[in-house]
Amino acid sequence: MPIPSPIAWTPSGGVRILDQTLLPGDERYLDLDSVEAVAEAIRVLRVRGAPLIGIAAAMGVTLETRERNTLDAVRAAASTLGATRPTAVNLHWALDRMQRRAAEIAKAGGDLHAALVAEANAIWDEDRAMCARIGAAGAELIGGDALVLTHCNAGALATGGIGTALAPVYTLHAAGRRVAVIADETRPLLQGSRLTAWELTRAGVPCTVIADSMAASRLRKGDVTCVIVGADRIAANGDVANKIGTYGLALAARAHGVPFYVAAPSSTVDLATPDGGTIPIEERAADEVAGWRGTRAAPEAAGIWNPAFDVTPAELVTAIITDTGVHEPGKVALGHRLSGLRTPADR
Amino acid sequence: MPIPSPIAWTPSGGVRILDQTLLPGDERYLDLDSVEAVAEAIRVLRVRGAPLIGIAAAMGVTLETRERNTLDAVRAAASTLGATRPTAVNLHWALDRMQRRAAEIAKAGGDLHAALVAEANAIWDEDRAMCARIGAAGAELIGGDALVLTHCNAGALATGGIGTALAPVYTLHAAGRRVAVIADETRPLLQGSRLTAWELTRAGVPCTVIADSMAASRLRKGDVTCVIVGADRIAANGDVANKIGTYGLALAARAHGVPFYVAAPSSTVDLATPDGGTIPIEERAADEVAGWRGTRAAPEAAGIWNPAFDVTPAELVTAIITDTGVHEPGKVALGHRLSGLRTPADR
Repeated sequence: MPIPSPIAWTPSGGVRILDQTLLPGDERYLDLDSVEAVAEAIRVLRVRGAPLIGIAAAMGVTLETRERNTLDAVRAAASTLGATRPTAVNLHWALDRMQRRAAEIAKAGGDLHAALVAEANAIWDEDRAMCARIGAAGAELIGGDALVLTHCNAGALATGGIGTALAPVYTLHAAGRRVAVIADETRPLLQGSRLTAWELTRAGVPCTVIADSMAASRLRKGDVTCVIVGADRIAANGDVANKIGTYGLALAARAHGVPFYVAAPSSTVDLATPDGGTIPIEERAADEVAGWRGTRAAPEAAGIWNPAFDVTPAELVTAIITDTGVHEPGKVALGHRLSGLRTPADR
Repeated sequence: MPIPSPIAWTPSGGVRILDQTLLPGDERYLDLDSVEAVAEAIRVLRVRGAPLIGIAAAMGVTLETRERNTLDAVRAAASTLGATRPTAVNLHWALDRMQRRAAEIAKAGGDLHAALVAEANAIWDEDRAMCARIGAAGAELIGGDALVLTHCNAGALATGGIGTALAPVYTLHAAGRRVAVIADETRPLLQGSRLTAWELTRAGVPCTVIADSMAASRLRKGDVTCVIVGADRIAANGDVANKIGTYGLALAARAHGVPFYVAAPSSTVDLATPDGGTIPIEERAADEVAGWRGTRAAPEAAGIWNPAFDVTPAELVTAIITDTGVHEPGKVALGHRLSGLRTPADR
């Protein structure tokens, strides 16, 4: 069974997306033929995951140049798309790259639309290759059959390829290894239950869902090979910001001597952030914790605390797997510098 | 604001219960006038919590002797009520006690119904006193203003008094201390969000609900005075079986040097269980984790693992608070024996 892909071109050059808000109950694909439609899809999370948002936005720009093949059209499209999720770094990085490319072509006098389609494909190809490299490095590190515990969704649904945290799983599966996954449901938004479990079982990888609070008991059971999670930002010292719940999972993994791996693009390493203490933690709306998919559980009189992320200190991380290889957490910044990849200052 | 009470006699000698399945949205009391109605309430969890189930069952027996004041009626009522939740130890203990008392009275030739009402009230009074003693011991241990983190519901709604884990909170609050609670929502059944947050805020104690996976981050924040949880069973060596998620919470508390207290009736100490390794862990239905209140999240193709309890090793428990006082976990069996209270073999 193939790994599901959340994005594609339509035959007429439109953008086909898997509507992730309907998963896992309904696997519905939408053909988007305007910048506004792509912007709406990003805004309401039909398309989510930092790398995938960047790819979708780049592809979205070309919907405008199909109609109006001008620099003004590119600027207008980038403005519309950039306003959807103001804090999404990959989104703005992809839109900046498309605009730079458009300016080059406009100067040189080439076909703007054709060049931008090629640039969007390049962004997508690079992301696919990044995922594949993480998968190869992680699969080599694990080295055989495995039961992997993961949190949230850092899989194919979040990227243009085979994901980040799930890339080693798919790579081992493709190599004929017996690999299965235990997915934390990941309250409050249930990305593990809704998305990770869906994409894995759709691809033929066995997946068992647990409530987040069951992870410590499962690690104690002794059958988990390793934990692999994604990352939203990795500080220069190896501290990792990721979905809320990652830190508690890392503590439980350490208590049971289970390796705790973080898998992420090398661009996630932020040299401008010395350690996790300086990473701002977004607090999100109370109703996410107060209820469950629209059904309220907590009384109105109760307070709610809803941090979206937590920070796992480098000393709890066994290794960081990126597209440049496997790094000791404390040396990830060094590996990153040596690799010559872009730093946050570049993007 | 008074602490809500989940059970009462009606003026005509019926049993009034708070329908806990409707909380927190709807505070509805039901007047039950038959054994069958009480049995239904226990079966579908309108009445829940081990001590409260015992009290409700004892009161339920008297609904039968109101009509037919005979030993046969007592036996029939006990049989109907005992079939509702076959593994609930307190339920069977309370029904056995009512039947023994009925046999004594039948032999002596007194008024069966009046004696059984008195016996049900005695069971209730003893439970209320047990809660009060846990509250006093816990409040003295904490000794002042506090921010308490708890898991699941071991409060007034689970007992005939002020609860077990929440008893020290109510006792400090009544003494004018500034006390507030952080409640884990407690997936999969959300007893923390639905019940703990409701009874605390109803009683005027500030309560903040978090997803279970946020507890480690909150403990790291440094403002939590202590964790207090209940217990389903305490082994002779001090290992504690409690609601799933307790173990991970204990690991996080230890990592941050936050005291981790277990508060439970001394009857929870099971001298026949040498350690936690021999406690059977019930696995419950998959749909509890796959969804909530009928709304499904996980795909049908995914497996589910749903253990109802976990075991926290004694070395992670700072102290065990019972109605006989505050015990070191490793010495709880000794304290229990010295107190002369009933052992599981007695009940």
